Order: sequence, then C-alpha cells, then structure tokens
Amino acid sequence: MSGAETQEKDLDQGESLLAKIALEAELADYSPVKGCMVIRPYGYAIWEQIQSSLDKMIKETGHQNAYFPLFIPESFLQKEAKHVEGFAPECAVVSYAGGKELEEKLVVRPTSETIINYMFSKWIQSYRDLPVLINQWANIVRWEMRTRLFLRTTEFLWQEGHTAHATREEAEVETKKMLGVYKTLSEEYLAIPIIDGIKTETQRFAGAVTTYCIEGLMKDGKSLQMGTSHYLGQNFARAFDTKFQDQNGQLQHVHQTSWGVSTRLIGAIIMTHSDEKGLRLPPKIAPIQIIVVPIYKEQAEKEMVLKKCKELEETLKNDFRIKTDDRDQYSPGWKFNHWEIKGVPIRINLGPKDISSNVVEIVRRDTKEKLKNVPQQDLRQYLLKLSTEIQENLFRQANDFLIKNTFTVKNEKEFAEKINSGGYLICFWCEKTQCEEKLKQKTKATIRCIPFKLPVDQNQEEGYCISCNQKAKQQVIFAKAY
Amino acid sequence: MSGAETQEKDLDQGESLLAKIALEAELADYSPVKGCMVIRPYGYAIWEQIQSSLDKMIKETGHQNAYFPLFIPESFLQKEAKHVEGFAPECAVVSYAGGKELEEKLVVRPTSETIINYMFSKWIQSYRDLPVLINQWANIVRWEMRTRLFLRTTEFLWQEGHTAHATREEAEVETKKMLGVYKTLSEEYLAIPIIDGIKTETQRFAGAVTTYCIEGLMKDGKSLQMGTSHYLGQNFARAFDTKFQDQNGQLQHVHQTSWGVSTRLIGAIIMTHSDEKGLRLPPKIAPIQIIVVPIYKEQAEKEMVLKKCKELEETLKNDFRIKTDDRDQYSPGWKFNHWEIKGVPIRINLGPKDISSNVVEIVRRDTKEKLKNVPQQDLRQYLLKLSTEIQENLFRQANDFLIKNTFTVKNEKEFAEKINSGGYLICFWCEKTQCEEKLKQKTKATIRCIPFKLPVDQNQEEGYCISCNQKAKQQVIFAKAY
Repeated sequence: MSGAETQEKDLDQGESLLAKIALEAELADYSPVKGCMVIRPYGYAIWEQIQSSLDKMIKETGHQNAYFPLFIPESFLQKEAKHVEGFAPECAVVSYAGGKELEEKLVVRPTSETIINYMFSKWIQSYRDLPVLINQWANIVRWEMRTRLFLRTTEFLWQEGHTAHATREEAEVETKKMLGVYKTLSEEYLAIPIIDGIKTETQRFAGAVTTYCIEGLMKDGKSLQMGTSHYLGQNFARAFDTKFQDQNGQLQHVHQTSWGVSTRLIGAIIMTHSDEKGLRLPPKIAPIQIIVVPIYKEQAEKEMVLKKCKELEETLKNDFRIKTDDRDQYSPGWKFNHWEIKGVPIRINLGPKDISSNVVEIVRRDTKEKLKNVPQQDLRQYLLKLSTEIQENLFRQANDFLIKNTFTVKNEKEFAEKINSGGYLICFWCEKTQCEEKLKQKTKATIRCIPFKLPVDQNQEEGYCISCNQKAKQQVIFAKAY
Repeated sequence: MSGAETQEKDLDQGESLLAKIALEAELADYSPVKGCMVIRPYGYAIWEQIQSSLDKMIKETGHQNAYFPLFIPESFLQKEAKHVEGFAPECAVVSYAGGKELEEKLVVRPTSETIINYMFSKWIQSYRDLPVLINQWANIVRWEMRTRLFLRTTEFLWQEGHTAHATREEAEVETKKMLGVYKTLSEEYLAIPIIDGIKTETQRFAGAVTTYCIEGLMKDGKSLQMGTSHYLGQNFARAFDTKFQDQNGQLQHVHQTSWGVSTRLIGAIIMTHSDEKGLRLPPKIAPIQIIVVPIYKEQAEKEMVLKKCKELEETLKNDFRIKTDDRDQYSPGWKFNHWEIKGVPIRINLGPKDISSNVVEIVRRDTKEKLKNVPQQDLRQYLLKLSTEIQENLFRQANDFLIKNTFTVKNEKEFAEKINSGGYLICFWCEKTQCEEKLKQKTKATIRCIPFKLPVDQNQEEGYCISCNQKAKQQVIFAKAY
C-alpha cells in the first residue's frame, strides 16, 4: 500500500513535525485506508486521559451519555438546507448492505444533529421534558481531500453534545457554558492557551445560528480550531418538528445547542509542546507521569536496584501514573531517549549510589533540568509540587509564544508583511463578508474569531477595516489555519 | 418511519419481554434506521459500568487499548477464505465518498481481524516485538435480517481483543485466559451463571481454529452466546504475511487470538434478571445502586426531609452510586414504581417518622422485601452487606433456574419432547456434523458448546449419539438460541 508515502509527500514544516512526532512517539500510524489513521496504544492512552477529564466535566454539568446510530438516512441530512450544503460533499455513503441495494442510501455520520433531532421529537412533548442534555462519544467520518495525522483525518473520534431547551436564553447559556468547559480542558489539562470567541458567518457550523470556538496557536504559527460550541436556534427543531407544549399550553419549537472536541486535540498537544527531542506531555493528561529507569552494571546490582525501583513505584502509585522500565535488552541511555521522545514529564534515574545515599536523580522533560540528590524522604510531596510546576511551565511557555506571535496590524501592507511568518494578526474589520473573503483569497488567512477578549491589550474602540479601509468597530483575529 | 412497528411485529414471548423492559426502563429505543437502535442514557450508563469493570480486567491482563479504522478495503476481507465466506453476506459497503466513486469499495467493519493484521505485519519483525496484546472499544456493523434490541442489532458496540504470539501454546493460553475474564465478568459482575466450552465446527468463528464461548440461559429458555474467544492459529498471519524472526533467526508466522463481548450483555441482563415489575440490576453494574425517595405531605415537612435525604446521600456517596429523587411533580408511589421498573437494587424511603426515630425504611428490589426501622447508625455497613447479598441472590436465582432447566436426554424421542419447552439438553454426540445439522433442521436447536464441565453431575464416560444412536464419547449441550 502506498497510503503512507502519498500522505507524507508535500508536507510543510509544521506537518513534518507533526508526522515525525506522531510516528516516532508511536502515537499513531498511517493506515491502508486513505485518510484514516490508526491510533496506537500510547496515543490512545492520551485520548483516554482527555476523555476521562472531559467526561467528568460533561457529567458534572448535568449531561448524560447516550449512543445514536452510525448511519443516517440521506433524507435526514437534506431536511436542514444549510446543513446538507455544508456536509453532503464530505459524506461517505452506504448504498449496499446485507447483499442488497438499500431502498434509501445511508450516510456515515459526519455529525449527528439530524438523527438526534429525530429521536428528540419522539422524546420531547412537554416543558417538563426539558432541558434534554445529551452527550455522545463516537467515531465520525468526513471525507477530506487533504489529511494529516490527528489534525484532519477521514475518520476521527470525538464527543458531540446535543441539548434541547425551552428558551433561547437557556440554550445560549448552555452554548457558552460548554465553550467554558473546553477552555478549562485546554488551558488547565492540555496546558494550551486559547483564544475564545465567535466565528464569522463564513466559518459558522452548517445549520447553526452562532458558532463559538476556542483557537490555539501552533508551533508553526498556524491556528488550530480546537473545539466549537453552537447555538442552533430552532433550525433543526423546525426541520424535524421538535416541539414541546409550554406552561401556557402552546406548542413551541425547542432551542438547541451542539458542541464537540475530537482526537484533533492530540494533534494540538504535539504542535504546542514538542521540542527537538520529541513530545512533551502535560502531567495531567500524560498516560505515564513518572518513568523510573534502573541503573546498574553487574548482575549483583541489578536485583537490588530493581527491587528498590519497585518499592518506589509502590509508594508513589496512588498519586501518580508511574512505571518502571525494567527491560533488560535496552541500555539506560536508550531508555532516556525513548521516554523523552514519548514526552513523559518526569524521569527518575535510580542506581546503587543513589540507593546507598537515600536519594534519587530526577530529570524534568519540560526544561531538561537534572535534579540531583533529591531525598527519598518526602519524595511524594516533592513530585506533586514538581508536577504542578511542569504543568504550569508548559502552559506559560505556550502562552509566551502566543503573546509573542500576536501582532496588531493597521493596514493591508502591514497585514501582507506579517501574515506569511505565522501568528495571530489583530485588526479591525468592517463585518462585510467580501472583505474577509478578499483577504482569504490573497493570503489564505481567515478570521479565526471575533475574540471575547484580545490576547494583548488593545484599548482602541474604533479603527479602519484591514481590507476596505472603511471605519470599523470590530476587532478580529486573522491567521492561517489547519 | 415504520421501523419501530415492523420490529415489534411477530415477537415471541422472550422478545416481547426484552422489548417491553428495554423500552419501559428507557434503556433503548428503536431508531429510524433499520435494525439500528438508540442506546438511551440509562442503558448507556449500564454499558459504562460494564466497560469500566471489563476494561480494568483487560488492562490488568497486560492489554492496551488502541483504535483502528472503521473502514476495511474489500480486498482485505477476501484474503482469508473462510472469513470472507462468513462475513461478506452481512457487510455494509461504502462505494461512494467525498462526491466520488471509490476506486476500491470499503466495508464497514464487521470485525477487525483483517485490518489489524495488516498493521501487525508492519509492527512485528522480531520475537522481541511479541506478544502484541491489543484491545479496541468500537462500533461494529453486521447487516442482520432479523433484529432485536440489544441481542441482535445491525450496529452494536463491543470490545475486540487482538493478540499475536510467538507460539501456539502461548496463544492458546491467552485464548482461555480471556474466556476466563468473560466468565468472571458474567458471573461476578452481571450475576449471570454461564456454561463455558468449545464451539463445534459449524458454530466456529469464520477464520478461527478453535472458538471458545460462554453461554447463558435466558428466562424464556433460550441460550445466549454472551462472549467468544478465538484461537486463530496462523490463518490470518498467513493471509497477511504477519511474520517474525525467532530466536534462531528463522521467519515464522505469528499465532493469534481474538475475543469480544458486546452491548448484547445488556440484553442478557434483561433476559436473566427481569421480573413482572421490570428490570432487576446487580449492584456491581447498576448505574444507581441506591435511590432515596423523600416522603412528605406538607411543605413544612418537605424542607426537613429533603435536607435529611441530602445528608444521607453525602454520607454514603463515597461507597455507593446514590441519588435522591427530589422531583416535586411526582408522588412517592409513582417514584417507587419508576425505580422498580429501572431495577435500582436498593430503595431508601425517608419520611418524618423515620427521621424522628433515626431509622430508614429499605426496600430490596430483588426480593421486594421491605426492611423497616433500619437504624441510621451503621447504615453504611448495613448497605454494603445488603449489596453483596443482593448481588449473590441474583446469581443464585439465575443459577437455580439454569440447573432446573438443564436436562439429560438419551434419545431423539426424549430430545424432541424436551426441546420445545426450552432449557439446556445434555446428550452424547458422535462428533459428526451431519448429526448436528439433522437435529438443527428438525428442531432449530444447535449445539451451544462442548462444555468444559457439565452444569449437572454426569459421570458417564460413554453413551449413544442423540441423532444417529452410534456409540459416542462427547457430551454436548443443545438448546435453541438467540
């Protein structure tokens, strides 16, 4: 199969880094199916960490998980005009199954608003049934022309929240609340600073009234849409006749939201935190937080050192995801390198000298700093503190990068000078789609969002549109994006 | 859509019970896509409990989770002759995607041996790379003609383990080890007694050398295959050329296993533990183990009672999945009924009288027994003990049912008399496929397995084949099955 080779051709700098780390750290591999990747155990373990952190927050905000069919009747997609326009070109279609042509073609879900709305119509009758707060963990298929490991694959894993409410206000509160959850996930767990804001019409989800997003700035200067939360209004409710009887006995369409993040987040981690040695993982989502490497020369030492490593593991395993690399066929040097590539936040080297002095040697993955002679007493406290420090340091480094690469530009000349070197460009925009489109055609950059808050201080209330030079009140963030 | 109606027609007694409980307890719903169901939040929460119990055991036995593509190139399926023969008729096929006819058709995975073997061939070079121990949680599609909620749906959720080993012995140990894990899951978590054994050739997985299974006896007397574990030999390794260099430098094909259980297990729970009031859930996998129902008449009482309920919840929430049903719009009687249908193992009724006497009233779902005046002191200990008792009682009841409905039959007449009233029939079989097939055609019953151990004592070493009456040494279990 030539899938791998084809997909590795023509990668730009950022994509090369992504592919290099994803493959070397054994996070993923190319598959024989065009655009589909295999998530290898170490990559999947990161996804499990992300899932468990996020699933907890989704449940704490009152949502319940459920599961809806993979297949969606083609006619369902067509019920909402903008939705079908947006998704039909990317659909994979089943027309033959069980040895027969199907009466109606089935689309492999590119997102589940339509099938879920069909079920909501069955389940929702009265205001007493509202709100309905559902989440689904599932695989999704969108036939992409140009794919990249994690960032854009034909099949990906995600969660999609779908909620129905009695009022517009309640649905809007929900939309923003879940965007807030994504911001927390990104900043506090993945250690990735984001800009949150509203998408312009051209970047809006097909079928939504408003799309909110979080955007992260990747190492190569491109922006990545890391999560979206949509206020759907009554668009799908009208298409599927999802109605409820309100407290006055009147029939009304529900107001809805949907929101999702995907395995793309693993791509975001790679493209934010990697260095020349490989991956660097934030402790909160690292499958292995501490790797213990035993150091010994003779067989006589070996037994004693391994025993001590296991003891250490036992002492710390309630507080950390810790593992001893006790493989005999690899040297300590090989192991150092191996676990650096894989981004394990903390390494403990343990040899006979350390043991006799009751200390350990610790190596931080984030700064590469070597911490010698750390007393074994109070090691737990020391490591808890160190984990927090590493988590915060990774965030701080990424945030410094974001600030350093955010520029204010006042006119098209400045815009043109800056845009090719990457980063975020803050500028005024007159809110006309044609101005946005014009810049996109010239530079391939798009408005990533109308930010809630600018990443750097900007007190101007008014300026001139970056494209047409007319007076403008809206400041937006432009960037090239994945 | 007429999906629901079509699917409810012509249900036999067991299927009616299944559908009634699945719908009334809000575990699942029919979907507009033929044969696909929607798993509703309460049903999905049971699945999450099963997943977390099983996932832990899968990881403790050294396996790692990973994720492989949903789509499998049609040519892959064809590489193993028996595999394609078994699965091709059930496949859903994508031939059109992203606005174009595909060069090669893609099958929606009916199981993942083929695509995983392709990847194994890339990853495995040396004996040092073995064993490879992988598990995948995924959705699966098999186009079934006749579907039933949970027990047989076109799409279902499952886990599929796939392992590669250097030797036949090691692979066989693995196959049996994972069957043992399924037995533990079924008996100790789901409280369902099983018969474990080997499938005959006609019932073997398409592509396997040996298929082991666990079978449970459902309330309507039919058997349910609850899980299978296959020794695949080198069949797929040969088809995909999955080879390793052994310690002597010789190239050899790997020996493989695969094993899986699915959302069908939720059907098994329904069809084992339900009674005339609804579902009964074993505490270990109940999403809600204790439901607290506040009892009050006047508004003045309400506040005090709810406060006490919340206090109780706080005290117990570290040990139990506990919830207070504080909804105002429903009466206590309505709530009793509601949570009985949903099978919550323990109900606590709490009213002003109980509070003033420092007691609670407890109702067991399994026996419907009302336990009055249980002191609030030591309630935690009392409930832990009660949970264990309920878990054990559900298993005991199911096991009694299995024993009571297992019969030894000596000739075809006895077989014919017994088979239509359900249950397991133990008999001798001469090991000829034609004898098995003949009985299947006459009675629709199949050999569920050659059991490791008979469920009732049978010391005979030899007898006569139930079909051809020739001397026979093999005792087998016949039953009608889902």
